[in-house]
Amino acid sequence: MAKKLCIGVLTSGGDCPGLNAAIRGVVKAAWSMGEARVIGIADGFRGLIEGRAREIDPEEASGLLTRGGTILGASREKPFALRDDEGLSDSQVGLDKPEMIKANYRSLGLDCLVTLGGNGTNTTAARLQREGLDVIGLPKTIDNDIWGTDLSFGFHSAVDIATEAIDRLHSTALSHNRVMVIELMGHKAGWLTLYAGIAGGGDVIIIPELPYDPVAIARHLERRASEGKRFSIVAVAEGAISKAEHKMDKKERKAARAEMAYPSAGYRVAAEIADATGMETRVTVLGYLQRGGVPSALDRVLSTSFGMAAAELAFSRSFGRMVAWRGNEIDSVSLEKVAGKTKRVPADHKFIEVARHMGTCFGDED
Amino acid sequence: MAKKLCIGVLTSGGDCPGLNAAIRGVVKAAWSMGEARVIGIADGFRGLIEGRAREIDPEEASGLLTRGGTILGASREKPFALRDDEGLSDSQVGLDKPEMIKANYRSLGLDCLVTLGGNGTNTTAARLQREGLDVIGLPKTIDNDIWGTDLSFGFHSAVDIATEAIDRLHSTALSHNRVMVIELMGHKAGWLTLYAGIAGGGDVIIIPELPYDPVAIARHLERRASEGKRFSIVAVAEGAISKAEHKMDKKERKAARAEMAYPSAGYRVAAEIADATGMETRVTVLGYLQRGGVPSALDRVLSTSFGMAAAELAFSRSFGRMVAWRGNEIDSVSLEKVAGKTKRVPADHKFIEVARHMGTCFGDED
Amino acid sequence: MAKKLCIGVLTSGGDCPGLNAAIRGVVKAAWSMGEARVIGIADGFRGLIEGRAREIDPEEASGLLTRGGTILGASREKPFALRDDEGLSDSQVGLDKPEMIKANYRSLGLDCLVTLGGNGTNTTAARLQREGLDVIGLPKTIDNDIWGTDLSFGFHSAVDIATEAIDRLHSTALSHNRVMVIELMGHKAGWLTLYAGIAGGGDVIIIPELPYDPVAIARHLERRASEGKRFSIVAVAEGAISKAEHKMDKKERKAARAEMAYPSAGYRVAAEIADATGMETRVTVLGYLQRGGVPSALDRVLSTSFGMAAAELAFSRSFGRMVAWRGNEIDSVSLEKVAGKTKRVPADHKFIEVARHMGTCFGDED
Amino acid sequence: MAKKLCIGVLTSGGDCPGLNAAIRGVVKAAWSMGEARVIGIADGFRGLIEGRAREIDPEEASGLLTRGGTILGASREKPFALRDDEGLSDSQVGLDKPEMIKANYRSLGLDCLVTLGGNGTNTTAARLQREGLDVIGLPKTIDNDIWGTDLSFGFHSAVDIATEAIDRLHSTALSHNRVMVIELMGHKAGWLTLYAGIAGGGDVIIIPELPYDPVAIARHLERRASEGKRFSIVAVAEGAISKAEHKMDKKERKAARAEMAYPSAGYRVAAEIADATGMETRVTVLGYLQRGGVPSALDRVLSTSFGMAAAELAFSRSFGRMVAWRGNEIDSVSLEKVAGKTKRVPADHKFIEVARHMGTCFGDED
Repeated sequence: MAKKLCIGVLTSGGDCPGLNAAIRGVVKAAWSMGEARVIGIADGFRGLIEGRAREIDPEEASGLLTRGGTILGASREKPFALRDDEGLSDSQVGLDKPEMIKANYRSLGLDCLVTLGGNGTNTTAARLQREGLDVIGLPKTIDNDIWGTDLSFGFHSAVDIATEAIDRLHSTALSHNRVMVIELMGHKAGWLTLYAGIAGGGDVIIIPELPYDPVAIARHLERRASEGKRFSIVAVAEGAISKAEHKMDKKERKAARAEMAYPSAGYRVAAEIADATGMETRVTVLGYLQRGGVPSALDRVLSTSFGMAAAELAFSRSFGRMVAWRGNEIDSVSLEKVAGKTKRVPADHKFIEVARHMGTCFGDED
Repeated sequence: MAKKLCIGVLTSGGDCPGLNAAIRGVVKAAWSMGEARVIGIADGFRGLIEGRAREIDPEEASGLLTRGGTILGASREKPFALRDDEGLSDSQVGLDKPEMIKANYRSLGLDCLVTLGGNGTNTTAARLQREGLDVIGLPKTIDNDIWGTDLSFGFHSAVDIATEAIDRLHSTALSHNRVMVIELMGHKAGWLTLYAGIAGGGDVIIIPELPYDPVAIARHLERRASEGKRFSIVAVAEGAISKAEHKMDKKERKAARAEMAYPSAGYRVAAEIADATGMETRVTVLGYLQRGGVPSALDRVLSTSFGMAAAELAFSRSFGRMVAWRGNEIDSVSLEKVAGKTKRVPADHKFIEVARHMGTCFGDED
Repeated sequence: MAKKLCIGVLTSGGDCPGLNAAIRGVVKAAWSMGEARVIGIADGFRGLIEGRAREIDPEEASGLLTRGGTILGASREKPFALRDDEGLSDSQVGLDKPEMIKANYRSLGLDCLVTLGGNGTNTTAARLQREGLDVIGLPKTIDNDIWGTDLSFGFHSAVDIATEAIDRLHSTALSHNRVMVIELMGHKAGWLTLYAGIAGGGDVIIIPELPYDPVAIARHLERRASEGKRFSIVAVAEGAISKAEHKMDKKERKAARAEMAYPSAGYRVAAEIADATGMETRVTVLGYLQRGGVPSALDRVLSTSFGMAAAELAFSRSFGRMVAWRGNEIDSVSLEKVAGKTKRVPADHKFIEVARHMGTCFGDED
Repeated sequence: MAKKLCIGVLTSGGDCPGLNAAIRGVVKAAWSMGEARVIGIADGFRGLIEGRAREIDPEEASGLLTRGGTILGASREKPFALRDDEGLSDSQVGLDKPEMIKANYRSLGLDCLVTLGGNGTNTTAARLQREGLDVIGLPKTIDNDIWGTDLSFGFHSAVDIATEAIDRLHSTALSHNRVMVIELMGHKAGWLTLYAGIAGGGDVIIIPELPYDPVAIARHLERRASEGKRFSIVAVAEGAISKAEHKMDKKERKAARAEMAYPSAGYRVAAEIADATGMETRVTVLGYLQRGGVPSALDRVLSTSFGMAAAELAFSRSFGRMVAWRGNEIDSVSLEKVAGKTKRVPADHKFIEVARHMGTCFGDED
């Protein structure tokens, strides 16, 4: 009897709806496609460093499709951080994490490793591939900022949650004649804020890709008020940056923000609006609610399909690749190409144009 | 002062989440892009035949994004039906509907007509274009069966609703050791059943494109039972057809169905399963619930974008085209190409393969 | 060491949101209150007849709060049915189910049995108590028709689901100028239809307690149409009965219904309306969707509290009682008093008056 | 022809699901019960001070049942504040708001005023009654802290939203081995946190009525960790107060909090837990999301019924009363009795006992 294909799976980074559905996809497809075992690695790369892993059995794989979170646990462990950040080899600091990963990969008898994660994870995955492991990436993030794929799973669930939150704020805004600011996730990319902002009918949408001018926003809100519109909804990505900040270097910006001492971007924007217009503002930070809960129908279909595609790549021994969704088809792309990149919203993206025609202000107008 | 561009809008066919959002998209974009008036035509083509229409004003356009249904009203009026079905000209039967449409189009001063509808509507739209009107189509259907576009608006809202329904049935199935059959919409195309079936973890998925054999389904359910799985979920498209029926001609099939006298496909499949296995079955027909309510976030983004794209086509005088979503981009396609076609699920569609690997039976197996 | 209190738990009848939450409530409270073991009995009374049971452990009790269905399984087994229906003792037919229940109760070492069920279950529970077992009832039903308690768990979850369904139908009704009929559960009692009908703004509400006259309904719908209201929503309980039927004896009614051959009450009412008014009607049967899924917040609080109250009764050896919710407090009532009764909507219930003032027709008007 | 009864309606304080449904209830019932006009007053007491009001017509009353917010607008205007807070008569400060209210009440021709609001509003309502107006109160608050009624509308919608949020956090907590703190509304009363905490399976629930000891909470969380439970959910009311703070007088407490500089109670509790246990904590502040959106089915029934009851009181000229829900019945209570009181959770409330038996820590344990 031939040796079974042995596939390791880990989930890395912040959690995200669809992780369990994707794990189920890998596992069920692997069993369906041939002789295979799937080893679940605990707590992301940390578990692989520490050798914590167990074989996934059919009992465990059932019921996963709708469950939030990840049954494997996750961590934000970045195994190459010490090498990179400190300019040291890990061995110099007494702990060479990449070497420990390689050792455990072998002692677990893995033929390949499937990593479910975002940009950081894919970058690590590419590097491990380069250093001799066989790795397959699945694109997971509510930010949708992974290069090489039109969609990552988790994104549309987060858009649904954020849109529902904006819907709720509408009634309060309307009743009280207020500017309601809602801060959504997205440090570098504004996809989530753009989609939820359009879906929720946001009057102002502020994304990291388009530095904003508080004056332009104030002008827009005042124009609305002068037209008798008693309220406004402002959707702000957590990575929002003003035009003034954009001109600073990183250090200046950090100092400027420390001085202002706002808890986060939403509070800063609300204060700027209140200062410039005298309007009453209120801030809601959606936070962790965007990451949790049952995945949406679309994310379940995507996660399951991505999981199956990973199993396919494993059986065809096509390693060093990330599963991708491109032009309405499942596809794959080299991890090397994905590594180190961030897919940001282009300034001329059609949806920005759509939103502008709906009357949305991005704060970048002159 | 130049004459304003005058755009007529109508909604035709069954209703569908996103119609109002798309109307809002057309209206707001038209006003934003230039000098334009938008005329809302009541109750689909019937209103255009009868000359019932009104200008849409800003008051009416606000609040539309999240509202279900259509503020214009809809009908299933097919203006060319008499010509086609009866072999008569309408004038022979005293009522030439297409001529009445042309007359009203002119008397309303329309520069173009935007039709929101499914396959029948697009076919009518193409024909009106051929006969001298200027028409732009928007693809609307929960069935997702419009040729030339990857997505039509309404589809993903319906998938969400159907998936939530399957989730609910899971608990009853599990508690009572039953086969729960759920019938979903889709006469000719199984997209909705395929997506919701995968998202809901359906054990059996039956779509019109893959004629089923009750024996294959029974075998699958018995295998599950023998593995200790106490329940099963069967998702059936209303256009499901058995292998035996598939061999009949249309007339034989109609006679065979009349004799069986099942209210619909779900009941028929449930009876076949009960007969073949002795298992307890229960049927749920989701029906109109799939068409109603607030559009999903994704459908709001799509509808709004499609609406804007229609306004763009109107201003650029690109008539005879249907707005489309292709490869993650807004695009357009000639109505002539779309007319008369149905986009069905190809037998080798990747998602069918995905579902099979998850253990789903399509009933077409030998 | 004192013997642990040994509590058996079973779930009987149709499933219902909150069953698992109530099981968890019993189990966790029993462990918290003292030395106790909880034995889960499979598939309702059937499992007790057949001696299928297992001890519930902490692992199993966790994660139950939000899970739909029942981890114990349920059945509609009525152990006294043979005695009652056939006029035979079970021993005469070779199987004395009540004696088998008593024997298994003893061999499992139970100190008491907690039954989660509706009217039939409580009646059986009272009888088993009379015959020497110690039984505690928990009121479970989406119909809310259990005598002696203001609320049973499952009811408000079903009201939420039914109301959401009516909300969805509103948009289709509005778009298409139709009468949308929705059939909800409730054979003998109309609580669910009354609550959901009011919450959904139903124009007509038909409940078993108020026999309806199709003519009165037709008049109401025509009045609405004459006021320019293009659509109506009709909420019908499955046990709806017309005034004409109400005058028949049971046999006549059965014959009359067999002749009409409508699948269910909703279809009958829709046909009557269409006949009397010529309006277009459409029927939706909500069916099993009302029973399934995650319990609502209120039902989780109630189920948990009821479960704890059952454990309290067990520890205080207060047997032969059903936990109840009365006047905003947890209470209990003798199972003997509950047995054989149905709590129906009184004709002068305040909510009927409320609905009438909102413009709702019950069809009982002269 | 007799003069029509003229009823003024205003909504006061923070917004809350069900306001529009209650307005609809008053309006439709008033029209149904007899000859009546309903005057909608803009922006709470501020509109009455400024004489901004309009008659509500049938067009406006339709579609209100499911709409969030209030079509009348609301404000937090407290007309007696100057008299009370400053020890001045308003006339001394040039603006006697109560007198302006009385004057407008008369010039609008009101026979009575229906106020929809919380504790502050009811207190004002009682005072206006005492000063010669005829007032009827409706109990509205998501806090459920109005004395004299078992339920106020808005409460159960907020419980639903808060519970859903806790459900979402569960998956993140589980995946990342974290303590997730969620802050809910409730300055003086913990009803919302108690209900949502039980419904969401909160491991720790902190309410204003039970001062907490961070050490007791830390001990509880450490015990959970030692049992292998990798995460915990902590539900905190915004009015949470520690045992140490409880011993301080108001001034000391204010100073102590200013020094700590936490944005709100949730952040403070999270920091205390992190300090005491070294565990990773994350904070979510649900904020305005608790107030917005479509009312739940139960709140729609309650709001509608409360509205009708207000119309009944108006027609029977029973003024100076607040509509109440008591022991599963609609009732009313004297505004004088309600004024100035807050209904807090009693320390021996049954639900606290329920939660403790489920393993929840309130932080008040020794």
